[in-house]
Amino acid sequence: MTSTIAGFRFAAVSAGIRKDGRVDVALAVADRPAVVAGLFTRNLVRAAPVLLAEERVKNGLARAILVNAGCANACTGEAGFAAARETTEAVARALGIPVDEVLPASTGVIGQLLPVAKMNAKAKELAKSITPDGYEAFAQAICTTDRWVKVAEAKVETSSEDPVTIVGIAKGAGMIHPDVGPPQATMLVFLFTDAVIKQEELQLALAQVADKTFNAASVDGDTSTNDTVLALASGASNIRLTAPQIAPALFSVCDKLARSMIADGEGANHVAEIRAVGLATEADARKVAQTMATSLLVKTALHGKDANWGRLLAAAGRAGVAFDPRLASIKIGDVEIVKNGLAMGEEAEKLAAEVLKGPSYKIEIGLGSGPGEFSYLTSDLGHGYVDVNADYRS
Amino acid sequence: MTSTIAGFRFAAVSAGIRKDGRVDVALAVADRPAVVAGLFTRNLVRAAPVLLAEERVKNGLARAILVNAGCANACTGEAGFAAARETTEAVARALGIPVDEVLPASTGVIGQLLPVAKMNAKAKELAKSITPDGYEAFAQAICTTDRWVKVAEAKVETSSEDPVTIVGIAKGAGMIHPDVGPPQATMLVFLFTDAVIKQEELQLALAQVADKTFNAASVDGDTSTNDTVLALASGASNIRLTAPQIAPALFSVCDKLARSMIADGEGANHVAEIRAVGLATEADARKVAQTMATSLLVKTALHGKDANWGRLLAAAGRAGVAFDPRLASIKIGDVEIVKNGLAMGEEAEKLAAEVLKGPSYKIEIGLGSGPGEFSYLTSDLGHGYVDVNADYRS
Repeated sequence: MTSTIAGFRFAAVSAGIRKDGRVDVALAVADRPAVVAGLFTRNLVRAAPVLLAEERVKNGLARAILVNAGCANACTGEAGFAAARETTEAVARALGIPVDEVLPASTGVIGQLLPVAKMNAKAKELAKSITPDGYEAFAQAICTTDRWVKVAEAKVETSSEDPVTIVGIAKGAGMIHPDVGPPQATMLVFLFTDAVIKQEELQLALAQVADKTFNAASVDGDTSTNDTVLALASGASNIRLTAPQIAPALFSVCDKLARSMIADGEGANHVAEIRAVGLATEADARKVAQTMATSLLVKTALHGKDANWGRLLAAAGRAGVAFDPRLASIKIGDVEIVKNGLAMGEEAEKLAAEVLKGPSYKIEIGLGSGPGEFSYLTSDLGHGYVDVNADYRS
Repeated sequence: MTSTIAGFRFAAVSAGIRKDGRVDVALAVADRPAVVAGLFTRNLVRAAPVLLAEERVKNGLARAILVNAGCANACTGEAGFAAARETTEAVARALGIPVDEVLPASTGVIGQLLPVAKMNAKAKELAKSITPDGYEAFAQAICTTDRWVKVAEAKVETSSEDPVTIVGIAKGAGMIHPDVGPPQATMLVFLFTDAVIKQEELQLALAQVADKTFNAASVDGDTSTNDTVLALASGASNIRLTAPQIAPALFSVCDKLARSMIADGEGANHVAEIRAVGLATEADARKVAQTMATSLLVKTALHGKDANWGRLLAAAGRAGVAFDPRLASIKIGDVEIVKNGLAMGEEAEKLAAEVLKGPSYKIEIGLGSGPGEFSYLTSDLGHGYVDVNADYRS
């Protein structure tokens, strides 16, 4: 990414929350109150920062986002809620802005209380060091098990000379099966735009786009207590946009971030886009694609680069959706390996196995001639996932 | 097991279906037509032997069960159906019984056609070698990735001097998340009893028991195309039983077999019984227990012997069931690690981690004061699962 995003400044510091001493607290600040939209985890068990940010998003305007890695501040009761509030207070004071314009987000171990003193000791340093090109430090600081930072950008072409810019910053590698709804991590996504847009338009566009991107992507089927997507619009471009006008560029940014998160799935080497077509409805197609994308047998077969169409078809068969297996077709990349419910033979499987060696590919299952279709992103599952998750806290 | 089961004889041979030359075809024969009940996979994609056995169970009586390992004969179309029929024909001829009294079952790789010639070449040898104590060879022959054979037995105490006996033989280690319904593997379960019982009574008891045992157990969340549970009653005891009379002993056999299958979960070292209590209804409790039992993050934490109650609670929170997280309590064995939604501290976690070192234990989550409760069996998930499933066909 080459551009900064007009109206926003960023910073990151190390507050010693993570054991390894890396940067672990990030701050984004809008020059003026920015229009804000948010989506939060639909898990019934929700972290303190989720509850607090959701409440504050309702104000319609926000000035800052305060994020920490290393501690999810989830399942921490009243004390956790107080800790989230106190850390936003310290930052608000250091910035000289109202506390209810500071939105908290946390990611890390569940059940540990946010270390308020450590964070607050860094509030002034953080507030002083914000710069327009600080977004890379911000992106670094919010990572946990991520192998790389996730930043994406898209432009909205307008009749004006200057385009509107959208920049997205995300983290997420495990516990990824987001289900964020209108007022849901441990996917954290922060979107910044210089567009002028009403809150309801931004919220609408964000919800529509998230449903086809973040909510259609899975590493392990586990929805976090902390998933958060926040979008801030500074208005610095002076160009007014509606939901339909901003949605395509917003989709582009969110799609890139979702693919990057899935590619970074713990221990994953491949990104598969599983597309179900020919179902009666989009909802049916979503169920089929999601069931295939979250099947352990499918994910381990992809890890083994095994064109195991039997597992693909068996996963579709337990999705709870009606179809005639005799009409089933499966393509891996451009290779048709199943037609009319039957295997196309060893040659096709060999060609398909070649496709599966690639870093990303598409698998399409056709189950009839209905109009319903849906794409779901998934990763392969191998030893790396077990390494990361069997020993996460030790 | 020490006893034979009156009215039944068993045999097994190697027909060269498995690559390793082990016994791979098994036969069970009732001395006279036996009352039969069956449950088959509710996966929409169903193997040829499932379709054929389901059809024949409707006759109410059966004389023989013909099982092969190494080839699932699933997704094989008309040719697969013909192959299943032809192998049962050869066995029926060799035994001198009607073909529709021979029930086929298959387990192994999906998409490969059953090798009829190999199997039929062994039909006479198989038919000749049946003996009352051949059940151990039968249990060995139906194994695939199983590390041990699974045989269980229970007695029904009756007013008569001799009890009624139930013997169960099962296979299953991966693709285990059975969902068998009234007329659904790669769990295969064969139950033999010398009780006198009507088909509808046997079917009713079987369905009730399967719902609390096999259908409440998961290795990987994948429901097979071939899951089959068959129960045969020879009547040789001359003791007549009703569904309520046979159900407790049938439960005892099925519960032992389910626990043995989960303990044998591919790469698994532990069996966890996850019990959800205090929900509004049993259906709600089932959803919570199942979501926890199938969570990858939970299963990898169990592999790491990590008392990660945050993952347990987060999994419960995405089950789609209403509860107040502030009322949540979690016990691992007898160790209470969460109370009123909050952690009990490091000492409790250490004690809980000790429990998690054992081969089997119970995890109980309390989510209120409702009457709904349900237990679900699961295994830990580690490197062994990836080894077995990423390289299954190569």
